[in-house]
Amino acid sequence: MGATRELAAYIVSARHESLPADVRHEAHRALLNYVGCAVGGAREAAVDIAIRTLARYSGAPEAQVLGRSERFDALHASLMNGISSHVHDYDDTTPKNYIHPSSPVASALLAYASTERVSGADFLLAFVLGFEAESRVGNAVYPSHYDVGWHITGTAGVFGAAAAIGKLLDLREQNMVWALGLAATQAAGLREMFGSMGKAFHPGRSAQSGYLAALLAREGFTSGEYGIEGPRGFAPVQSRTYDLAKITDRIGTHFDLRENTYKPFPCGIVIHPTIDACIQIARSRAIQPSDIAAVHLRVAPLVLDLCNKKEISVGLEGKFSVYHAAAIGLVRGKAGLREFTDETVNDADVKAVRLKTVATADPSIAEDAVRVEVELANGQRINQHVDHAIGNLGRPMTDRELEEKFRDQASLVLPAQQVSELIALCWKTGALADMSQLIAAAVPRA
Amino acid sequence: MGATRELAAYIVSARHESLPADVRHEAHRALLNYVGCAVGGAREAAVDIAIRTLARYSGAPEAQVLGRSERFDALHASLMNGISSHVHDYDDTTPKNYIHPSSPVASALLAYASTERVSGADFLLAFVLGFEAESRVGNAVYPSHYDVGWHITGTAGVFGAAAAIGKLLDLREQNMVWALGLAATQAAGLREMFGSMGKAFHPGRSAQSGYLAALLAREGFTSGEYGIEGPRGFAPVQSRTYDLAKITDRIGTHFDLRENTYKPFPCGIVIHPTIDACIQIARSRAIQPSDIAAVHLRVAPLVLDLCNKKEISVGLEGKFSVYHAAAIGLVRGKAGLREFTDETVNDADVKAVRLKTVATADPSIAEDAVRVEVELANGQRINQHVDHAIGNLGRPMTDRELEEKFRDQASLVLPAQQVSELIALCWKTGALADMSQLIAAAVPRA
Repeated sequence: MGATRELAAYIVSARHESLPADVRHEAHRALLNYVGCAVGGAREAAVDIAIRTLARYSGAPEAQVLGRSERFDALHASLMNGISSHVHDYDDTTPKNYIHPSSPVASALLAYASTERVSGADFLLAFVLGFEAESRVGNAVYPSHYDVGWHITGTAGVFGAAAAIGKLLDLREQNMVWALGLAATQAAGLREMFGSMGKAFHPGRSAQSGYLAALLAREGFTSGEYGIEGPRGFAPVQSRTYDLAKITDRIGTHFDLRENTYKPFPCGIVIHPTIDACIQIARSRAIQPSDIAAVHLRVAPLVLDLCNKKEISVGLEGKFSVYHAAAIGLVRGKAGLREFTDETVNDADVKAVRLKTVATADPSIAEDAVRVEVELANGQRINQHVDHAIGNLGRPMTDRELEEKFRDQASLVLPAQQVSELIALCWKTGALADMSQLIAAAVPRA
Repeated sequence: MGATRELAAYIVSARHESLPADVRHEAHRALLNYVGCAVGGAREAAVDIAIRTLARYSGAPEAQVLGRSERFDALHASLMNGISSHVHDYDDTTPKNYIHPSSPVASALLAYASTERVSGADFLLAFVLGFEAESRVGNAVYPSHYDVGWHITGTAGVFGAAAAIGKLLDLREQNMVWALGLAATQAAGLREMFGSMGKAFHPGRSAQSGYLAALLAREGFTSGEYGIEGPRGFAPVQSRTYDLAKITDRIGTHFDLRENTYKPFPCGIVIHPTIDACIQIARSRAIQPSDIAAVHLRVAPLVLDLCNKKEISVGLEGKFSVYHAAAIGLVRGKAGLREFTDETVNDADVKAVRLKTVATADPSIAEDAVRVEVELANGQRINQHVDHAIGNLGRPMTDRELEEKFRDQASLVLPAQQVSELIALCWKTGALADMSQLIAAAVPRA
């Protein structure tokens, strides 16, 4: 049996009861993080354009788009959900393969679940299976596949969406093989799109294409039998080196979902330690911006290669300025989406602290670490060291921190009361009789 | 200026008046061949499944699918047209890059033209530009890209569809750059799908994805600026070696369309010489099947590697049997779609001649050649040599032969009178005020 069929056989046979409790909990965390990203990104220009452009081509408006009042057919809703959930570069990451795994899978599943009755338990199982299928196909080709220039979130994501939707469609093994094959032959997404809307298009299109693959396969649309491993299949064609054993190694007992991480701050990852340290200082004692005489940062050299801009005026520049990172941490005590707007970048207090910040490259400092010293006007010095920035696997965001992040994102689009309701529903997903309850709470109310 | 922008600039600026007369004529031939394939394939199972599965997800039914009475939104109609026009493996080929070029481009264009008023002149220009964009991007990465396992009809096709639709949408240069970039990041299609419905899915999906790329780009959905040539763009990622100069070399004066070829027979290309020779014998004199004592074929060794099956019972096997090839040539004097049905394979006369046929591998015979000797019951011997089978660039199908092929295909789906009308309209394309006239003739009438 080849890798494609082995993976198909596992997906077809897996049962909700066999999911370990910690995996179920991590699935809830991933879903919470996903929904916050999708709702929070729903008003971005890329989503607006896709919605405006594709309304004409949509089937019956049966599926909700998270964070929006417009409805689409489920395939188009998958696309929109995928774009909005990745557009802030704020969704989850499996560090072992650089995939942003939840978006392609959950974007398709939530579109499906807004057109068919799906229990929370079935939803969670499909989500975990889609996540694993995607991450494991990714593992098989990582790092060669990523290094050559594929945006692995799109290329592996299509397998995840096909597996997840195929599970809800209750495909038999042969049809699941075809679903994975039709996914393989749609695997696309180039890193050349980074910095453009094309990047967020990838998880959207992979959600939509994977969903399409599962629908066609159910009706008997055939693919090659060895879509992943065949000599002209996904792995040999799209990666110079690969290890097919990783696709099914310990499948069903080992879950990549356990190694999922969540981004605490919507900005370049190398400035996360600085933000983390400065937030810790701000939280440990009350400091007024005017109290600050100078801020000294000792950072890894890479930080200054990537984020050395101090004279900035727009929000996007703030995402790649270690000086801005220090300033918002100290002045605002947080670094959510609002801390990377044009307004915040030009805020007088933030700007004043930014200009008082000095950074020194120090090869002895690791990339996920920082040494911060704040010099106060009264001569006092506050030191804060971070060895592993929050959000890393070794120092994961807590459930409560994920909720805070969610509030920050979702409140851009939904009223506070509804945001709280939605958070509660996300935590209860596994017990919901019908996922439409959660979906209804994720769209603006009339 | 990079390759993507140079190509975009050419597409945006090209005018119908600048197309040489022979290129216009070849465009009509390609279109005639395409429409015959699309109409002729419209009742195949792959099309039925796609139509049945996707009806629910279609937007307003404004676009015709060739050969079908169902209507879809234009994106879905592009997909259906692409599947039907490739499902018989009977569409055109540019031998220099192995692309089946018309399907991705015309499938999208005809879907578009059934929702918007498009003149024949504008249509032809968009078709030629789409064809050139696709073929030239293909040239840049061929053969490495094809050898590694990409189905180049799908991967290059998406550029053709984006360019063609983008031209009809009158995109400006920047938007055309994005259309090509969004095409690049959807370039997919694995040769591992050969032998399954997934193969015909490729030109369909590339037509649909290219169309989508152009629509999004028009509304300002951005892509990377160097989708083709950037370090993480299409060419470096999807080909081990490539030559970007081929994309715009002599563009506007040299047309790949001039080197387009059309398949005379819907079967393995290596048995075309045998069919060709046997048809020539059958046409040169009246022979009854019972007159034939034996048929001796001297063929290239590859022919017997690929097509050495004599005991066959289903139509698909006939497509890869050099014995069946000889039998239908001699008995039927033709080799259209009907000669590769189960019925014909089991026809008593065809079977009798097939069993009397013997083939010998001869390394001195080229792959596009054959030596045939028919031994009659009266002892007479008829010899026919073919050095270059019909359909090759050096011996192209005539306009009249293309019409015969068209009749054979389209009459599976449309009445004879309508087929004649449609042929006439295809030849008149460049002069039509509105392409909807042609499209209306390509679908069954109530």
